[in-house]
Amino acid sequence: MILTVTDFGVGSPYLGHMRSALNQSGADCEVIDLVADLPPYSVPAAAHFLASQVRYFPKGALFLVVIDPGVGSERLPLVLHADGQWFVGPDNGVLDVVAARAQQFQCYRINWNPSTLSATFHGRDLFAPVAARVVSQRLQKGELSRLEWHPEEGAAADLSQLIYIDHYGNGFSGIRASSVADDSTLLCCGERLNNARTYSDLPRGDNFWYENSVGLIEIAANQQNAERMLNFSIGTTVEILE
Amino acid sequence: MILTVTDFGVGSPYLGHMRSALNQSGADCEVIDLVADLPPYSVPAAAHFLASQVRYFPKGALFLVVIDPGVGSERLPLVLHADGQWFVGPDNGVLDVVAARAQQFQCYRINWNPSTLSATFHGRDLFAPVAARVVSQRLQKGELSRLEWHPEEGAAADLSQLIYIDHYGNGFSGIRASSVADDSTLLCCGERLNNARTYSDLPRGDNFWYENSVGLIEIAANQQNAERMLNFSIGTTVEILE
Amino acid sequence: MILTVTDFGVGSPYLGHMRSALNQSGADCEVIDLVADLPPYSVPAAAHFLASQVRYFPKGALFLVVIDPGVGSERLPLVLHADGQWFVGPDNGVLDVVAARAQQFQCYRINWNPSTLSATFHGRDLFAPVAARVVSQRLQKGELSRLEWHPEEGAAADLSQLIYIDHYGNGFSGIRASSVADDSTLLCCGERLNNARTYSDLPRGDNFWYENSVGLIEIAANQQNAERMLNFSIGTTVEILE
Repeated sequence: MILTVTDFGVGSPYLGHMRSALNQSGADCEVIDLVADLPPYSVPAAAHFLASQVRYFPKGALFLVVIDPGVGSERLPLVLHADGQWFVGPDNGVLDVVAARAQQFQCYRINWNPSTLSATFHGRDLFAPVAARVVSQRLQKGELSRLEWHPEEGAAADLSQLIYIDHYGNGFSGIRASSVADDSTLLCCGERLNNARTYSDLPRGDNFWYENSVGLIEIAANQQNAERMLNFSIGTTVEILE
Repeated sequence: MILTVTDFGVGSPYLGHMRSALNQSGADCEVIDLVADLPPYSVPAAAHFLASQVRYFPKGALFLVVIDPGVGSERLPLVLHADGQWFVGPDNGVLDVVAARAQQFQCYRINWNPSTLSATFHGRDLFAPVAARVVSQRLQKGELSRLEWHPEEGAAADLSQLIYIDHYGNGFSGIRASSVADDSTLLCCGERLNNARTYSDLPRGDNFWYENSVGLIEIAANQQNAERMLNFSIGTTVEILE
Repeated sequence: MILTVTDFGVGSPYLGHMRSALNQSGADCEVIDLVADLPPYSVPAAAHFLASQVRYFPKGALFLVVIDPGVGSERLPLVLHADGQWFVGPDNGVLDVVAARAQQFQCYRINWNPSTLSATFHGRDLFAPVAARVVSQRLQKGELSRLEWHPEEGAAADLSQLIYIDHYGNGFSGIRASSVADDSTLLCCGERLNNARTYSDLPRGDNFWYENSVGLIEIAANQQNAERMLNFSIGTTVEILE
């Protein structure tokens, strides 16, 4: 299984080009677009989002992670093998939270070269062909080389900010709910928020926080758009008032 | 064939999680995202939208219907078998129009339980695994139980409101065109609208109503955005002036 | 491989209906949604966008091209075979740039008729079933007939306008970068723009032009939304100041 994780937007041709590259490179597995509307160029947000996802997917799954504002620069292209799953993407921090939280990982530099490499779309030209080769175990000796690589110091810690806002206007924070007591009060945009288990435990329009379906603290309102009610955005601070 | 019908938005991770759940649960068939931008939490709109779709899909098709504002509450999870097609979703009214218009149907309560059930994402944790088991006929005795269930009184009737607005700004009503004479005038947002067969029968920018490609009355304008011209929204009344 | 090229938007049911029609018509190949958010009804923009794509896809690929504001009118339905690839769509100009730039092409009129043809969705009712039959070579004698057809005079030339704006706010022009010197200055929205190779060659927020990943001149800014900075839109003129 290959899961695409991008800030490409949907409808745009970039996902189609990556899928075609996977297909033409012989990826003989299910390809699922896991998320395409991560906030543009926001590497820390994407890194925390990615780390929240991995436990919902099987061993052997490959995450093709293309949040790549430095495309065409000197940043390295990486393959990370962490706790039995694969990650292919740029060395810009987007893989650091996954690696820092993994029980074990190994990191590889991509030496494989495509016949043509555009300056601005390594997702299509480099990462997708490598992903296809990794899942079907067709990389030759030397096309990956073991790298002495470590995630940034402190990358395992939670991020006390909003990292993703969905279509309903709900805001995902980078805080794992397991680290916070259920009766904690949160502060976001000057509003104090209490916990609820699910939307319908509250009157319509009330805002609250809850442990979302990937284990993160999420700020929402019952059948209303919390983003517009509270006026939050990517990067807004979420504070835990004990 | 499994068809997802949701208000999840696109790009967001929810469709990806459902697809992964279908895959991991052994759904060995084509999965098509039929619609992902139904108006958030709007059960009556979704119910009428769904009912307009079914005749365009084959016998045996399964609709995985997740418009579920009451997720985590006491509402039952259902499997509906209506006129040879399957529907999996919550008992909140979203399946009522299909059932009320079917020649015959049987309804089942889902007793199957996942090993882990989040409070807010039964689409992934419950409905998708059950859908995979229904299409591949792998449910065990007792995992579904026959339910004495009836759609809400009057659910078969048309809904004289806008239920869906597409990317072009065209508004679908919940009124079946077969019940309305071709020379009828409609009233919407204070504007009187006449029928046309197709866009190009009119000058550019003219608004009109027509029988759309799923048999509903739709309000549109030739190569213009009718939503912005008329300022309509989900729930706007559409009146038939004979 | 079938690639859908549409102005349908994403999330909406139209792509799902086309995919279902392909499936029910026996298309036994990968289907990829190449682009779904082309500017609504904008045939020249779509024609230039399409022509920029073809060299990234293999011989034998079929492009199902549904930008069709004249649906239900007298415009012909076409199958174009150009340089080893297939194109199925309406005769409204959307295939003209591809044909005009091809080394060789043959054009066919579609005589095949579906059992039911809606007035407003030939993508589902006509073009998708024909596409499925073309890729699996199941068209009978007479269902296509050779047409003496030529693209519009001058269709091969570049279009000095913005033809597509992506999710990042980058604007694709209809100008092929191969025809412009690297040190050219461009004028767009009163702003003079210089070339850069990739985003990260510039300070954050600087705007520039570059040869994008499909060979077109694209106007962008490093980690900023150029559409909002420059206030451009589809059709905005891009001028080359030598």
